Amino acid sequence: MLVVMKPSATPAEVEAVAEKIRSLGLTPHPIPGAQRVAIGVTGNKSGLEPEVFEILPGVAEAIRVSQPFKLVSREVKQEDTVIDVGGVPLGGSSIAVMAGPCSVESKEQILSAAVAVKAAGARFLRGGAYKPRTSPYEFQGLHEEGLKLLALAREATGLKVVTEVMDSDTLSMVAEYADVLQIGARNMQNFSLLKKLGALGKPILLKRGPSSTIKEWLMAAEYVVSNGNYQVALCERGIRTFETMTRNTLDLNAVPVLKALTHLPVVVDPSHGIGLRAHVAAMARAGIAAGADGLIVEVHPAPEKALSDGHQSLTFSEFDELMRQARVIAGAVGRTI
Amino acid sequence: MLVVMKPSATPAEVEAVAEKIRSLGLTPHPIPGAQRVAIGVTGNKSGLEPEVFEILPGVAEAIRVSQPFKLVSREVKQEDTVIDVGGVPLGGSSIAVMAGPCSVESKEQILSAAVAVKAAGARFLRGGAYKPRTSPYEFQGLHEEGLKLLALAREATGLKVVTEVMDSDTLSMVAEYADVLQIGARNMQNFSLLKKLGALGKPILLKRGPSSTIKEWLMAAEYVVSNGNYQVALCERGIRTFETMTRNTLDLNAVPVLKALTHLPVVVDPSHGIGLRAHVAAMARAGIAAGADGLIVEVHPAPEKALSDGHQSLTFSEFDELMRQARVIAGAVGRTI
Amino acid sequence: MLVVMKPSATPAEVEAVAEKIRSLGLTPHPIPGAQRVAIGVTGNKSGLEPEVFEILPGVAEAIRVSQPFKLVSREVKQEDTVIDVGGVPLGGSSIAVMAGPCSVESKEQILSAAVAVKAAGARFLRGGAYKPRTSPYEFQGLHEEGLKLLALAREATGLKVVTEVMDSDTLSMVAEYADVLQIGARNMQNFSLLKKLGALGKPILLKRGPSSTIKEWLMAAEYVVSNGNYQVALCERGIRTFETMTRNTLDLNAVPVLKALTHLPVVVDPSHGIGLRAHVAAMARAGIAAGADGLIVEVHPAPEKALSDGHQSLTFSEFDELMRQARVIAGAVGRTI
Amino acid sequence: MLVVMKPSATPAEVEAVAEKIRSLGLTPHPIPGAQRVAIGVTGNKSGLEPEVFEILPGVAEAIRVSQPFKLVSREVKQEDTVIDVGGVPLGGSSIAVMAGPCSVESKEQILSAAVAVKAAGARFLRGGAYKPRTSPYEFQGLHEEGLKLLALAREATGLKVVTEVMDSDTLSMVAEYADVLQIGARNMQNFSLLKKLGALGKPILLKRGPSSTIKEWLMAAEYVVSNGNYQVALCERGIRTFETMTRNTLDLNAVPVLKALTHLPVVVDPSHGIGLRAHVAAMARAGIAAGADGLIVEVHPAPEKALSDGHQSLTFSEFDELMRQARVIAGAVGRTI
Repeated sequence: MLVVMKPSATPAEVEAVAEKIRSLGLTPHPIPGAQRVAIGVTGNKSGLEPEVFEILPGVAEAIRVSQPFKLVSREVKQEDTVIDVGGVPLGGSSIAVMAGPCSVESKEQILSAAVAVKAAGARFLRGGAYKPRTSPYEFQGLHEEGLKLLALAREATGLKVVTEVMDSDTLSMVAEYADVLQIGARNMQNFSLLKKLGALGKPILLKRGPSSTIKEWLMAAEYVVSNGNYQVALCERGIRTFETMTRNTLDLNAVPVLKALTHLPVVVDPSHGIGLRAHVAAMARAGIAAGADGLIVEVHPAPEKALSDGHQSLTFSEFDELMRQARVIAGAVGRTI
Repeated sequence: MLVVMKPSATPAEVEAVAEKIRSLGLTPHPIPGAQRVAIGVTGNKSGLEPEVFEILPGVAEAIRVSQPFKLVSREVKQEDTVIDVGGVPLGGSSIAVMAGPCSVESKEQILSAAVAVKAAGARFLRGGAYKPRTSPYEFQGLHEEGLKLLALAREATGLKVVTEVMDSDTLSMVAEYADVLQIGARNMQNFSLLKKLGALGKPILLKRGPSSTIKEWLMAAEYVVSNGNYQVALCERGIRTFETMTRNTLDLNAVPVLKALTHLPVVVDPSHGIGLRAHVAAMARAGIAAGADGLIVEVHPAPEKALSDGHQSLTFSEFDELMRQARVIAGAVGRTI
Repeated sequence: MLVVMKPSATPAEVEAVAEKIRSLGLTPHPIPGAQRVAIGVTGNKSGLEPEVFEILPGVAEAIRVSQPFKLVSREVKQEDTVIDVGGVPLGGSSIAVMAGPCSVESKEQILSAAVAVKAAGARFLRGGAYKPRTSPYEFQGLHEEGLKLLALAREATGLKVVTEVMDSDTLSMVAEYADVLQIGARNMQNFSLLKKLGALGKPILLKRGPSSTIKEWLMAAEYVVSNGNYQVALCERGIRTFETMTRNTLDLNAVPVLKALTHLPVVVDPSHGIGLRAHVAAMARAGIAAGADGLIVEVHPAPEKALSDGHQSLTFSEFDELMRQARVIAGAVGRTI
Repeated sequence: MLVVMKPSATPAEVEAVAEKIRSLGLTPHPIPGAQRVAIGVTGNKSGLEPEVFEILPGVAEAIRVSQPFKLVSREVKQEDTVIDVGGVPLGGSSIAVMAGPCSVESKEQILSAAVAVKAAGARFLRGGAYKPRTSPYEFQGLHEEGLKLLALAREATGLKVVTEVMDSDTLSMVAEYADVLQIGARNMQNFSLLKKLGALGKPILLKRGPSSTIKEWLMAAEYVVSNGNYQVALCERGIRTFETMTRNTLDLNAVPVLKALTHLPVVVDPSHGIGLRAHVAAMARAGIAAGADGLIVEVHPAPEKALSDGHQSLTFSEFDELMRQARVIAGAVGRTI
């Protein structure tokens, strides 16, 4: 159920609706809107009658929400969510480009990558300090030292920092350094972590689990949003299928489907999505053409020496060329970069 | 093994090489090329030494082919194959657009669809007369009557006809009416049929099986080509995954991967690939951006009344709008429509 | 809709019901039953009232069939189908064991395999004369020569012959030699072939397509049965998933699910299902424990020299040991071998 | 690399080998063995020569380990691991049966379930107090209250308690009450949690992620073991495929494959594996026939009223019947329950 207030509704009227909701044993979720306030209602198992709310002062209408995901659905909020990352938009008409190495490896590496991706037009720097690795014997990241290097690169370039948080233990530390917290594919249904992210006032980039349905993914986002944090972007990074010639199968179908179902921004990760350096640019172009609101791309000063994901990382000049192509495609679909 | 002849090689020299190949118990496959002749060699299990051929007159070089698919690989033929469909190219810089209803249903339906898709810019008319259906109780197509209606629509509009052939029994009949023979996804590994197509001088549109790997798909094309027919285009139409919100998962990763591995044209079918009318245009755009050489799209005068696939068929005006978008994206990647 | 006749119904009463069905533009399918006749009705799109038939003489009741597969469903025929293969049952309380090489390779090979698998307790000899192969350059079978060798082995041992038919062109020839016609996984939805099998009075072993749902598989069986041939057994041989350590993923869930949905016998192929010789016996045991009515197992006199599938073929002594284990498990679930 | 000590090796000789390993910048992992000590070596990127260790006193031999998983592999430890859960074995010749409700719901519910499953022969009680749920609006478990009820049921029946831990925050609390800590499928690659489990002296039941390969699963177990905890059992609970008629696809292929690759016990969860109450017993039988060391089954006093997973929970009498069948199959493969 969604209760939409009139543009003229007073704060007291909004609070009265919230109080009515609580009195029924349900939970009110005030939803940010440019024109007017709406209040999502969750917790109702049985059918709730719209009339219960429509008779209250200041209420425009009460709408039943048919999807299992509520607060993230377009039914509840029609206009696109645009996340303000310290002045840089994530969502909206401008396509957000995030680029940088898979892992932060050294000061020289991250600084040179930051300078190069900024020059090419990216406004976000990606780089992992905590790395989830299939094997316990592989490089696991530089941890806090990596976070400090990211902060240094931000100071040097003005880029916003996107970096992964793997667990609750390191959440406050990572949140201190990051502008956007990335939740990795393996953690998409780490519900304990998702709830904590809901209580945090930081933008979240929620990657799709490799075998998660679109519905499960939206429910994962709902965990964050229903706990109070609306600053969530979704990142398609490929699903697991039978095809072995590519690392994953980038599911670009998900882009238009998501844009119809949810108001949250949708980002595409062509690097993990195909896993082959030679073809990252083609899939980045395709992602924008499908309607994505952002790209996240692995770029490394020397991919052949990278401690992780070198086979799918672009060189600086390859990224520069990708950005040139991306701008043309963005223009063709009425977007800017 | 591929034996590349010098541009100056005489027909007698080419034949001498073929004879040498046969004398070793192997099979020669002369490969069409603009500049010079090459001869594929198949049948060799054990290592064959290039020197065996390089000492023959007129031979430029003999190259080992590392992939299990031989004649369809870029190793063997580097320039793109452009199929000449009665004067209309399939492959090359211009993007081939095929459009029309899932099934031919009536004279009025197919003629109106043909006129409309031609007006919007398509140069091929699609339409099924023999329909593979999951249930024996569903509409199975108009059969020869449908083929005749397609021929009528061709006469009326000049469009080339693309239609599915389901089996050997009807092959000669379908081939009589069709300009391009479509092999459906379920028949991709119908090896008996593939061999017959190899002996036929008609262009083939080979759809990917819903659970076929890219390698298996190329091996299926190899069945056709090694039996003598080089006029094969590959059609990505979605693979089967765990995701149920879309009919299939359109694997656009396959587009750049195929363009690197094979010289055959690659067509994308966004209609089956996503299966949701509202999102067909987005996936068509993405297909072109990923590098596809063609599109095949379901268009129906009244999708809500279609005997099959109505939920994924575009109206005429939706197709017109898709073509407008497709042209812009094509231009952005240096192609025309 | 299923019209169940009283045990006392006369042939004239049965025919009168069939005539009534035809008069409604629908198709009657008389269904064999030990106790009484039933008549399946297909072709009805709109709701048909049971009363239309229940008022006719000799009719016990008319039942709506909720599943999309009609004649193969348990709703329509409750008792298990037992196929009589020249005196040897396929289906019923005794578990049918089919064994032999992937391909017929020579007289010595097939005769020695036949003698060995018979000695171990198999009653059916499997062996391919027409082999669907991913590559056009691989061994494709001995064709009619292979069929003759199978017939020879049958004469020598009394085993029933199970062999694959790949296409309509060779159907009559293969049917002449085979006791059971196997339809390979890639041909499960070769609808043209399925219809022809429906007109043939021969038992069919219909393998599941590697990405076919259980429902699609039952619909494929429905193609055969609705065309007049009730002698169909289903063979689970593994589906395609993301797991690469095994050749396929043997879906034993399908066994109890099928036994509940259909009256047709269910056979398990552990050889293709796991693709690793060392583990074939474990999966054969599991198949019987799950409720399978039969097994089909690859056995070769010298697996390391096999022209196909050697890595998953058992030696004679391994098969002997498997049969010993299978008998124990069969006894534990109240079955015999 | 694995360094195997002679049975006669002294503690000082073992420590000298460990010191040598450390001196090379590598990590020694002493591995428990009935007959003699072995020491796993991890951290070596480049080839290490066996001679380096074989010249040391007390060393029998040094063996290269070819698999990416080291300490969990059969190469490193050949005899089956048998976990001692307070006197009840998990692993070994006796099949461990774990049964109980999906969620702990009330004192009456868990006590009656415990009494019933014990009477039927189970030695472990399962029940969730922390429930990972796809939707934030669904029942999430009774939390500590649920743990207390499990402890109560243990006191009343002597059953060992198996319950899920979802995160690091609640790990110490759950560990206080549980005899075996279950890691859910969604947490299989929650590497932060796995490392913490490695430091804990408690048996772990590690469920397979729904899209995890067998190799990834073994690497996840390696995270626990390489951090010091060898008491890990693996639980196959179904993988995600395209089939929608069953909740998951129970991959019984994994059972014999795992038994060959690892010394850890393998448990099968037929309840989640098929997700349909009517067919749980068939899949439990199949699991034992395939070689599983244990079963975990959902049982509820009134499945139709269960707060979660009611559709796949057995009634007491259904479980009793399953146990009867399971005993017969266990006997047929030389095991006991």
